[in-house]
Amino acid sequence: MARPSMAERKTAMRKRPSEVKCNITTIGGGTGTFNVLSGLGKNSRLNLAAIVTVADSGGSTGELRDEFGILPPGDVRRAIVALAEDTEVVRRLFEYRFKEGRRIAGHTVGNLLLTALTDIMGDFERGIEELSEMFSVQGKVIPVTLDDVSLGVTLENGEQILGETDIDIPRHDASIPVRDAFLLGGGRINPRAKEAIENSDYVIIGPGDLYTSLVPNLLCEGMAEALRVSPAKIIYVCNIMTKHGETDGFVVEDFVRVLERYLGEGRIDYLLVNSGDLRASLIHKYEEEGKMPVRLRDRASLTQKGIKIIERDFTSETDYIRHDPRKLARTIEDFASGWVR
Amino acid sequence: MARPSMAERKTAMRKRPSEVKCNITTIGGGTGTFNVLSGLGKNSRLNLAAIVTVADSGGSTGELRDEFGILPPGDVRRAIVALAEDTEVVRRLFEYRFKEGRRIAGHTVGNLLLTALTDIMGDFERGIEELSEMFSVQGKVIPVTLDDVSLGVTLENGEQILGETDIDIPRHDASIPVRDAFLLGGGRINPRAKEAIENSDYVIIGPGDLYTSLVPNLLCEGMAEALRVSPAKIIYVCNIMTKHGETDGFVVEDFVRVLERYLGEGRIDYLLVNSGDLRASLIHKYEEEGKMPVRLRDRASLTQKGIKIIERDFTSETDYIRHDPRKLARTIEDFASGWVR
Repeated sequence: MARPSMAERKTAMRKRPSEVKCNITTIGGGTGTFNVLSGLGKNSRLNLAAIVTVADSGGSTGELRDEFGILPPGDVRRAIVALAEDTEVVRRLFEYRFKEGRRIAGHTVGNLLLTALTDIMGDFERGIEELSEMFSVQGKVIPVTLDDVSLGVTLENGEQILGETDIDIPRHDASIPVRDAFLLGGGRINPRAKEAIENSDYVIIGPGDLYTSLVPNLLCEGMAEALRVSPAKIIYVCNIMTKHGETDGFVVEDFVRVLERYLGEGRIDYLLVNSGDLRASLIHKYEEEGKMPVRLRDRASLTQKGIKIIERDFTSETDYIRHDPRKLARTIEDFASGWVR
Repeated sequence: MARPSMAERKTAMRKRPSEVKCNITTIGGGTGTFNVLSGLGKNSRLNLAAIVTVADSGGSTGELRDEFGILPPGDVRRAIVALAEDTEVVRRLFEYRFKEGRRIAGHTVGNLLLTALTDIMGDFERGIEELSEMFSVQGKVIPVTLDDVSLGVTLENGEQILGETDIDIPRHDASIPVRDAFLLGGGRINPRAKEAIENSDYVIIGPGDLYTSLVPNLLCEGMAEALRVSPAKIIYVCNIMTKHGETDGFVVEDFVRVLERYLGEGRIDYLLVNSGDLRASLIHKYEEEGKMPVRLRDRASLTQKGIKIIERDFTSETDYIRHDPRKLARTIEDFASGWVR
């Protein structure tokens, strides 16, 4: 599919009546969602809602969760940073992790701010709202559920791993594939998340760790239904690399297959796949961590289901293999302005 | 009303007409300075500079000071809060003290923010600047010195008490009067504090604990000289109550006498004394902590030195005996607009 020129895109954006905005909801967590949002947040023609997982259980987030009984702040924090004005300073402050101090080492400032504001305002969502207002966040950040959930997975050998941290950084034999995931502790969909999805033009799932950032959202009771009834087109941004212990050996079709288990077959409308070259030296570094580039093997099996595959160069120019926020944003803006259908 | 975004606020600040403003510098620390500043911060015709002590050594502030090697954030934090836009939410957030959490209980959010930003920006003053900009502070907050100083006092019996905390909350026989105070660790005046004083129309000293909030500023090398050469009128806001261990039995003239030891005799131009009635039940409560109302005994001894005494009702309507920010601000604005000479 030919990419529109900069001028064409600008004309298309101008043609849209300024009061009609495109509603875009992202579903995910972690760095992937940060990369989607931080590119899109600058576009005032988009109404953004970021639905983020609250299954995180490790580090500073896990400790604050245990001791203050709040929902885990980590993924919410990253979404707020991505959508804040003056992103650079806010990002450095929010992500600042105390290195010294026998009592506070390891905590991030953003987590502490969210913990304090949750207590001051009386609940997690009002804490998020206040923090969002304070740092002029462009859009809404919505925890996928307000229930205190824990993530678990069942491996192919029947073993169960409990807690997001132990799935994310496996201590078990991670060569055994994951068979299924589940949530403990309820996990009904947050009504505001449901509302955002049902009023969206586009729902963007991913990129992000499949079982620890994406699936915990989809497991929420009411999520599949909300996505089924929503008129939104669903765009799945497939990861560039596999992850050891979650998606070893996965090709694009495997990611889609797992998501369809929760979304229903054929519910994904668009699939964004990276076609940019990866530096050999970088691939080598990632291979040492058991991560491999994700290939598209059987294109026909996807197009037969009605999934449109959009292949572009999404690679970042950094020393990490990840999606470049501007490249992702440009593609999503092409959807919003009607250039990709 | 929707709150203006950070960007809108910045534009508004830039657009403000360059009218002739009155330059006012406060010198102090603690609650007293907070009360002066929080009333004045709303007045856009004033250029405010808040010079604050960095002698604090207790609690969250003391711990961060010891472990991170930063200057004590406590008094700076309170001044930033007082001058921030949206003071109420910012105040609640900055002053929020973690109650739970085995590792972070006792720390205030504002102290942690300042510690993080000091590390991120590379030094204490740039950390203050960044935090001030983030929360749209109206004015400048200036640590009186950039040296790592400790406060000490010598009692009338020759005993020395070291550290602001042990003077503020005495563990010694506090019925023995303080003879003198001193700073360990240098304490040259911060050039920005010197500049603010030399360019002020009015310098306001106090209210505040005499030896723990006011004198540590005046002890800095170069401070007396800056105040001597400045064309500014000096206004001293006398405390409403004495404080056990610092100013037991003091009348107004005693406060003035101690200050003049550092400022030079006759350097105070105006003296603000409370003439408002204090509730008997409140006085009783304070007496139990060894605090008594400060009386004006020998008016003539002050007026003979050329000090103009302004007696007004400065009492707050709260359950604490302290200066009401609006009443203080109104009086200071009367100076600024030329109504008090």
